[in-house]
Order: sequence, then structure tokens, then C-alpha cells
Amino acid sequence: MSRIHVPITLRWSDLDAYGHVNNAEMLRLLEEARIRVFWADRSAAEEHEVPHTALIAGGPDAETITLIAAQRIEYLAPIPYLRRPLDVQLWIGRLGGASIEICYEVWSPAGDEPRALYAKAATTLVLIDAESNRPRRLTEAEREAWSPHLDEPVRFRNR
Amino acid sequence: MSRIHVPITLRWSDLDAYGHVNNAEMLRLLEEARIRVFWADRSAAEEHEVPHTALIAGGPDAETITLIAAQRIEYLAPIPYLRRPLDVQLWIGRLGGASIEICYEVWSPAGDEPRALYAKAATTLVLIDAESNRPRRLTEAEREAWSPHLDEPVRFRNR
Amino acid sequence: MSRIHVPITLRWSDLDAYGHVNNAEMLRLLEEARIRVFWADRSAAEEHEVPHTALIAGGPDAETITLIAAQRIEYLAPIPYLRRPLDVQLWIGRLGGASIEICYEVWSPAGDEPRALYAKAATTLVLIDAESNRPRRLTEAEREAWSPHLDEPVRFRNR
Amino acid sequence: MSRIHVPITLRWSDLDAYGHVNNAEMLRLLEEARIRVFWADRSAAEEHEVPHTALIAGGPDAETITLIAAQRIEYLAPIPYLRRPLDVQLWIGRLGGASIEICYEVWSPAGDEPRALYAKAATTLVLIDAESNRPRRLTEAEREAWSPHLDEPVRFRNR
Repeated sequence: MSRIHVPITLRWSDLDAYGHVNNAEMLRLLEEARIRVFWADRSAAEEHEVPHTALIAGGPDAETITLIAAQRIEYLAPIPYLRRPLDVQLWIGRLGGASIEICYEVWSPAGDEPRALYAKAATTLVLIDAESNRPRRLTEAEREAWSPHLDEPVRFRNR
Repeated sequence: MSRIHVPITLRWSDLDAYGHVNNAEMLRLLEEARIRVFWADRSAAEEHEVPHTALIAGGPDAETITLIAAQRIEYLAPIPYLRRPLDVQLWIGRLGGASIEICYEVWSPAGDEPRALYAKAATTLVLIDAESNRPRRLTEAEREAWSPHLDEPVRFRNR
Repeated sequence: MSRIHVPITLRWSDLDAYGHVNNAEMLRLLEEARIRVFWADRSAAEEHEVPHTALIAGGPDAETITLIAAQRIEYLAPIPYLRRPLDVQLWIGRLGGASIEICYEVWSPAGDEPRALYAKAATTLVLIDAESNRPRRLTEAEREAWSPHLDEPVRFRNR
Repeated sequence: MSRIHVPITLRWSDLDAYGHVNNAEMLRLLEEARIRVFWADRSAAEEHEVPHTALIAGGPDAETITLIAAQRIEYLAPIPYLRRPLDVQLWIGRLGGASIEICYEVWSPAGDEPRALYAKAATTLVLIDAESNRPRRLTEAEREAWSPHLDEPVRFRNR
């Protein structure tokens, strides 16, 4: 239903020799948005522990590792250096047996008129049981935690 | 038919806090392979001119800009730091009206036994006429130049 | 006198395989702080022009290019992934004939107690006349503009 | 005495919006040269273990961690995109009680005439005992191992 809005601030070094945000760097920005949302808040602990993503916000789960299985991105318009943060919108496109599809739209800074849609993307994450090193099924608690952010997967133009 | 093999050397800084090549950095490696192949060799001139990719090897075409319209990647196995270069295999998956699909497979270093296939990917480039700033059709000369490297597009597992 | 405080938000990708902000990435963070301060605000224009740094805040000077001549950094403590922005403090350590020394201290996020000083650094910029491609002297207007931020250069422990 | 020559291949993504190798990226290139030299060769093991630098070539020492304490760099000329590898020359400028100063000169590709010196730099590494987490003294064996590469420290123009 509801998209999560993550403000992501560009750095000048995200630009390449063409003066626009580099195509690969775009995935870094999506990575950062994803981590800011999925990373369980561990307050005081966070500064001293090896970082890892947690799928259930508010509760880290060291018994599970999340691997990126696939990514897809369509670039709709080049992004110049912007001082105000991009508006990265993020939602769950699909809850599979052992996988989660995260969808994104990258928009120009909130408040800009007219708004520009710079990119659409999707990342497929697989949950791996840290002990067996094999995929494990999403639990009912996980499905429930994420269902408020479940919506239609992003539609790509091509195959 | 024939794939182009591009040796791409990792840097330790390609690894992230998990100790594997970062998911976004993978697109940088594909970018580098693509540029090494598509970038027309301009020998002495190359060090003094603004760099740009050229689709026809051996002849730069400043009248055409190539934009990345879409990318897709499947990560099959994590890549550790390797001293010997990855074997990035590259071919043309499709010659469209105004676009080209470049396909990639990222393999462990040549000579390793057994070989590991780390990733499969595809990039869609669109040719833009620099003057009108609009897509332009591939010429017959371009189709001919690239047809020896035309092969079946990479097959992805999912939609 | 007065230091300029620039909040710089980390990205998870700034960490290397040791789980701390990478030594080279640190210079990226200083670059970003420097650009945010020195880059003259060109409001509507900024999104459509090739970016360049301007030494006089509020007034870009396309006739001058700034080159980085030297950098120096001391790393005092490793930086983990932090959600809240680093407090990068920036001042002018020296106004030379044709050069400017920018000094930095990188502190833990504002409000943290106790504060941690992560790094000290300095960048020497040289002003280049774009037409002659040679260094040019700072003007009196420039000296005046920057003097409120002039203070003792950062002190490094070693030679 | 003898400098170690490390060929380091640029990537197009090392360039920033000015079309030259970015100032911070230069430290990445030095890092890569340093790791290629200092990283003890662990052949089969290397692909499966968490990477770490080893100061004594040929023998990793997991009991010691090396921290970067300081870096200094002078940029003498901008570096364009080059297909052939840079010639990074590396030597030991000083063996301290618990620290090592690594010096670098970054030259245009071997064989180019005339050669261009792009940058001079130095990195101070400190040896940390992994157990006590405190600096530890260089051993006689370490001093002996590195003395063939000991030479005058790089000379910087300014303070």
C-alpha cells in the first residue's frame, strides 16, 4: 500500500565524466535507501558491531543473511548534481517463498515542481539461513511485518 | 557468434563490508568492460580529448551519444578479492531500431578449474543524435560492424 | 575565526571489507563538504549546467578553475557506519598568493557525548586562470570574503 | 634501494565530472598498489578467507593488524583516462618503532616518452597487535625483509 520515502543526498563524486549521476552509482543510491529502511535500529550497539541488514525493522536476525539475487533498472532521465536529496520511493513488489522483491522509483527532490521521475528499479533479495547456508522460507511474522508496504511490482517497459 | 573476452582486474576497494564484490560495483566492472570494447581507439589523441564511447570500434562518432536506458543483472555467486582478472564475456544480444542490447557473463579468471559463473547481465544502450538530442536509427554500417558479435540474448531466470 | 559545520551523511558503501569507512573514501567526504561550502549557489541554473566549484560563495567565476595541489590527512579513529551525519568542520588555514589551504576536522555526529575526533586534514587549492591556464593571484575581494573563516592551520603530529 | 613497480589499470569511473582521475580516487589507486605488494600470497586460500594485508610478503600474520595513520599526496598533473596501466612506484621511506612509511610516485604508463610524473604520496602504517589492540614493535625479521626497499622518503614541496 504505502510507499516508504527515503531522502538520499547526492555527492558530487556520484557524477561521471558526462556530468551526470553514473549508471552504476545509481545502484549505490538504491542500496543506501534499502539499508536505511531494512536495517534494524540497534541504537547504541550499531556503532560497534559489524553492520548487516535486517529484514524485520526493529529486530535484527543474525541467523539470517540476505543475498542480492537480481537487480533491474530503467533510467528515464539523467540526474545532475542536486544539493537537495532525491526522493527514493520504496515498496515491496512481491513476497516469495524465500525471497523478497523490493521496488523503487527515484524522483526529483520533494517540493520540486514539476516532479521528474529519474529511474525505476527492482531488487530481489533471498533469505539465507546462516547455519545451513541455504535459502529459508519467510516466516508468517515477516510476511505480516511487510504486508503494509506490499504493492504492485514496478512495471518495466521491456522484456 | 563470437563472444569478446575482456579481462577485468578487481580492486580491493570493490569489496564491501561483507568481504565480497559489492552489488553496485559489479555494474562498474561491466561498464569498464563495455568501454574497453566500444571505445574507438584514438591512440595519441585519447589522452587529450574528453572521453566518450564510440559504438563503431575504430571510428569515434561525435555526432552520436549513447545513453544507458536499462540494465539487468543476476548474481549467481559472491566474488571474493581475486588477484587475477575476471573473464568478462560480452556480446550483442539484440540490434534494435535505435538501440543495442549488450549481454555479459562474468566468469572466474581464465585458466581456473572448475570455472565459476558469477553473474549474467544485459545493458540496453540507445543512440542519440547529438544535434537533435533524439534517438536515431542504427545505420547499415553499424549493423554490419556488430553482427559478428550478435548472439542469443542472455537468459534470465525470472520475469 | 569561525568554523563552518557541514553535516555529511555516510553511506554503507563507504565501508570497506574491514567494516570501517575506507581511507580513500574519507577524502570523498571532505570533497563533498568542500563543494557544499565553496560551490556558489546558482539556484535554478545549477541543475542544468556543468558543475564547477566557485571560491566566492554566492558568485561563480567561470574564469577561474581551482586545482587540488596537495592533500594531507591523519586518521585518529576508525569510523563505523553511522546513520546520523558526521560533523565535518572546515576553515581556511592559509591564504597564499595564488593558493588557499582548507582545513578540516571530522567529528562524530553533533549531539553525541562524548564527541569523537575521527580525522584531521588539509587541502591546498590553486587558482588557475582559465584563459592562460596559469595560476593567478587571489583578489582583495576574495581575501576579504574568506578572512572571517581564517584560523590557525590544522596541526599534524608528524613531519 | 630498489623501487617496486606496480602496474595499476585505470577505470573510466575513476574520472570525475572534470574528465580527470578524481583526487580521492587517487588514494584508491595507491591502496590497490600497496595491497598488491604487501598482501602475502596465500594461493588457494586467498579466495576463501577474509582478506587482510600482511606486511611480510610470503607470510601472513593474523596476529597483526595494520592501520593507516596518515596520508599525504601532491598532485603534479591531472590524469586522463588511459588504457595502459599507470606505473605506480613504491618504496619504504622509513621504518619506525611500530610504524612504516610507504612512499609512492605515480608515473605515466611504462614505455611512454616523455614520462609524466602525476603524483607523489606517502602513507604511514601502524602495526597493531590483534590481541592487545595496541601498537607493537617491528621485529628484526620484518626490518630485514623490508630493508632492500628502504630509500629516502618522498620529498614534498610544502610544509
